[in-house]
Amino acid sequence: MSGSRIVVIGGVACGPKAAARARRRDPKAEITIIERGDLLSYAGCGMPYYIQGQVETTDELMMTPAGALRDEAFFKGVKAINVMSRTLAERIDRQRKVVEVVSLETAQKQEIPYDKLVLATGADAAVPPCSGVDLKGVFRLNHPHDAEGIRKAVAEGCKEAVIVGAGLIGVEVAEALVTQGLRVTMIEMLPSIVPAVLDSEMAAHLQRHLESRGVTVLTDTRVLCFEGDDRGAVREVVTDKGNITAQLVLIAIGVRPNVKLAQDAGLELGETGAIKVNEHLQTSDPCIYAGGDCVESVHLITGKPIYAPLGSTANKHGRVIGDNVTGGNTKFEGVLGTVVFKAFDFNVGKVGLSESDCKKHGIPCVTAVVPGPDRAHYYPAAKPVIMKMIAHSETGKLLGVQALGTGEVVKRIDVAATAITFGIEARDVSDLDLGYAPPYSTAVDIIQHAANVVDNKLLGLAKSCTPQELKSRLDANDDFVLLDVRTPAEVEAQPFRHERVVHIPLGKLRERAGELPRDKEFVIFCKTSMRAWEAQRILEGEGFTRVCFLDGGLAAWPYEIPK
Amino acid sequence: MSGSRIVVIGGVACGPKAAARARRRDPKAEITIIERGDLLSYAGCGMPYYIQGQVETTDELMMTPAGALRDEAFFKGVKAINVMSRTLAERIDRQRKVVEVVSLETAQKQEIPYDKLVLATGADAAVPPCSGVDLKGVFRLNHPHDAEGIRKAVAEGCKEAVIVGAGLIGVEVAEALVTQGLRVTMIEMLPSIVPAVLDSEMAAHLQRHLESRGVTVLTDTRVLCFEGDDRGAVREVVTDKGNITAQLVLIAIGVRPNVKLAQDAGLELGETGAIKVNEHLQTSDPCIYAGGDCVESVHLITGKPIYAPLGSTANKHGRVIGDNVTGGNTKFEGVLGTVVFKAFDFNVGKVGLSESDCKKHGIPCVTAVVPGPDRAHYYPAAKPVIMKMIAHSETGKLLGVQALGTGEVVKRIDVAATAITFGIEARDVSDLDLGYAPPYSTAVDIIQHAANVVDNKLLGLAKSCTPQELKSRLDANDDFVLLDVRTPAEVEAQPFRHERVVHIPLGKLRERAGELPRDKEFVIFCKTSMRAWEAQRILEGEGFTRVCFLDGGLAAWPYEIPK
Repeated sequence: MSGSRIVVIGGVACGPKAAARARRRDPKAEITIIERGDLLSYAGCGMPYYIQGQVETTDELMMTPAGALRDEAFFKGVKAINVMSRTLAERIDRQRKVVEVVSLETAQKQEIPYDKLVLATGADAAVPPCSGVDLKGVFRLNHPHDAEGIRKAVAEGCKEAVIVGAGLIGVEVAEALVTQGLRVTMIEMLPSIVPAVLDSEMAAHLQRHLESRGVTVLTDTRVLCFEGDDRGAVREVVTDKGNITAQLVLIAIGVRPNVKLAQDAGLELGETGAIKVNEHLQTSDPCIYAGGDCVESVHLITGKPIYAPLGSTANKHGRVIGDNVTGGNTKFEGVLGTVVFKAFDFNVGKVGLSESDCKKHGIPCVTAVVPGPDRAHYYPAAKPVIMKMIAHSETGKLLGVQALGTGEVVKRIDVAATAITFGIEARDVSDLDLGYAPPYSTAVDIIQHAANVVDNKLLGLAKSCTPQELKSRLDANDDFVLLDVRTPAEVEAQPFRHERVVHIPLGKLRERAGELPRDKEFVIFCKTSMRAWEAQRILEGEGFTRVCFLDGGLAAWPYEIPK
Repeated sequence: MSGSRIVVIGGVACGPKAAARARRRDPKAEITIIERGDLLSYAGCGMPYYIQGQVETTDELMMTPAGALRDEAFFKGVKAINVMSRTLAERIDRQRKVVEVVSLETAQKQEIPYDKLVLATGADAAVPPCSGVDLKGVFRLNHPHDAEGIRKAVAEGCKEAVIVGAGLIGVEVAEALVTQGLRVTMIEMLPSIVPAVLDSEMAAHLQRHLESRGVTVLTDTRVLCFEGDDRGAVREVVTDKGNITAQLVLIAIGVRPNVKLAQDAGLELGETGAIKVNEHLQTSDPCIYAGGDCVESVHLITGKPIYAPLGSTANKHGRVIGDNVTGGNTKFEGVLGTVVFKAFDFNVGKVGLSESDCKKHGIPCVTAVVPGPDRAHYYPAAKPVIMKMIAHSETGKLLGVQALGTGEVVKRIDVAATAITFGIEARDVSDLDLGYAPPYSTAVDIIQHAANVVDNKLLGLAKSCTPQELKSRLDANDDFVLLDVRTPAEVEAQPFRHERVVHIPLGKLRERAGELPRDKEFVIFCKTSMRAWEAQRILEGEGFTRVCFLDGGLAAWPYEIPK
């Protein structure tokens, strides 16, 4: 391969990684990166932290860990890679194997010949089809220059901000703005926030946390247009539920892959609209590879295409492409749609399929919601987490995990990611030899506890109802006993007042089971559902037949507790 | 199985778990726990935190997360389990299927019949065969009463403590004592600390951290005896390197399984000296199960027996036994020897095989040492970690990971534990869809970076030498060029002064490679080894043939840097 010409279009994440990897494998290749912007290899995921002021300058987002700025001179000197920045790739001539480019500085055109071409054209922020999106003060967050604009607007004294879209960028920026004193309203079209990440009952916990920190969250709300003042600056966001004053608007409704160049060149797009690639990240033209935010991936569980743009995936793509454009034969198998993010004091994560993903794909599943401490409950730093685990109800395979809370979440998400990648059953999670010490986990870690609950359900031992089910039965005034097995002190501290409630502490249930009506149906609850599950087994042992417990107990109850 | 008699000997971790699980599966079984002590189900792993004062009372170590004390009344009322505490099981009559017990309160004897017997007899702290071990002030840490004794001794004004054994209990208690103002000396017979956990160059980093926090660490030192004063209190620890004054001594040289009861009953012991069990945790008598600290496990990599007592494993054993004594068919496949612990500000962990384990078992391996931040380097909370990864040099399978530092460690250990359990190759770690966001990880997480380095070495692309190798070559005054490719500012801040050193910053290496002697051998270093690896490829591209880089760079250099 020595001496071959490798041309990379896109200088942010996948592109430079592919180029650097190719250089390390092939010292003789002629490698060129074409980038339309003026910044290279920046850490786009760090932009919310720059807006928040935790990162001082956007330069920090472009430095290597050793403190070198990744500019053109860096690529030339260290990596012998030519960078053409402020240069637009206008057309790919696949017959002649050249890229036609134009300098955005001088308007000069040029043809760059390639043996292997890498498309790393990234994605742009999606913009809703409504008027006023170009007003001053209406931002997307696609580029460090956007982040600089938002930070400047904050410095200039904006007081009211609206974030359109309650996805993870929206949540991260909400935190960045609220902590700087802005009044923030977040608008989501769908009935619950971060809908691509969390099932609705899990999202409800996050929404409450955001609200507790001062964010106004409007779900089921559609933005109609943005109205400006006479200086062309945004003044108001018009929604189907009313108008909201704002001097700063962030549009964060997702990103769209930049596929025009590929499409114009006749390369195949996938059903998600992103560039289609095979497991070697080759496009429909074997000389052209593509990776990062402009391509779709395969979902490792469903086997179906998924568009899941992420900086981590872009880096992996870069390495795989760097191998394959220098004679390697490296595969990229796919993704699990893993998402983790911080929202004020909450850590939030999801991997694999949610329950609603399963419904969408027609996959039968069993779920468990488990609240618990992230480390030994007697260890002072222990903090709560709520975890939802989803397994295939026929094969028992682990399908997904969602978790959130002030406690540690990402470790468990990563364990699940590793387990799901290799297709293991939920029950196998129970026996993993995970690191145990009181400062880090409980003797039965929460992910193993969740796996045990799923296993008990798959075995037919544990029978639960979801908070949604209980809520709708209470609302419908169904006839059943809602059995509270908490201690009197707990009941006093946090009463659940409802005419259906009967209170018998777990320790008394065996002796007092005779008091209970045998013909009734029972839903049992406690704080976390561990005692309620014990109570389910006790009542079944006493001959009661229609007994279940509230999944996750009051700790995972996403609604108001009737007082 | 209903109505069967299940007798459990041992009331701490595995025993109560087995009993509780059995109860939930079989409401009719008659279940009895026999415990020699007066405390049940305590969290032994929490004892160092009680000594440190982070946990107020030993009661907290015995409570459920909901705050219920796990005493006899709790087991009776909630679980319908009979607990006989302060009762010693003296003999098992396997023919008649009875356990002969004696009350330690009344000396009354009794026979308890069983259908299924569970041995969860635990382990005791090992005691060295030297005089003075019974002096006042000489402790083991086996039981909450021991912890109470140590805390009392501290409260009474002990100023000097010696810890015999630099294992993880020793390290945890060293922290507990130093933070309360004691002068602590830790004595280890072997050349490096935590030898069962860390390879020596990794242990050197931990030792430095302990020393920086005021712990005196004596390795290669053997305790000969303990000397007391005329009131029978310890006064001095006599070692082969001299005497050390101490009013408080902790013996923490490991634990030994309690197997006498099993042995006397003719049950088979394994080669580790612990009780031998099959994958159903059955002993050589099919009616007798055993789990927790009294049994040996199978190591999932080597397939060989390993004695790895841990609270987490004991809980897993309990669940498996609870299944199997009630007609279930659950297997426990084995362990990976996972260990994690906190040592002052360091998080430390190991999973799978260390390099020295591999040597012992004759397994050929490739290793990589990788320092790096635990989260995005520009994120303010980012902290350093050093990771060592070990892979099979023929199959490429991931064999082990060690990691330590002030940064997050346990997440990566748990990912490795999951990956190793399913026998995956190190290179597969690179593509795991782990959770990425700047507050939690880097776009290429350190464990994926380590996997990439291992992969590069397996492919023959990356060539490194270990710190140990470089040190001995420097000491032997070998002829080679030690090429420093850091920036001038870095060199000034942390010079590595040695006559073999030549300094050319990475960015200048391509143009200045001509200055270097082609006939010499090169060892290249930088701060983390990323640039040195780049430099290796640059020099090879320029035709140099004998080039390698220092694994882990100066950040992982465990020795003094020559100044």
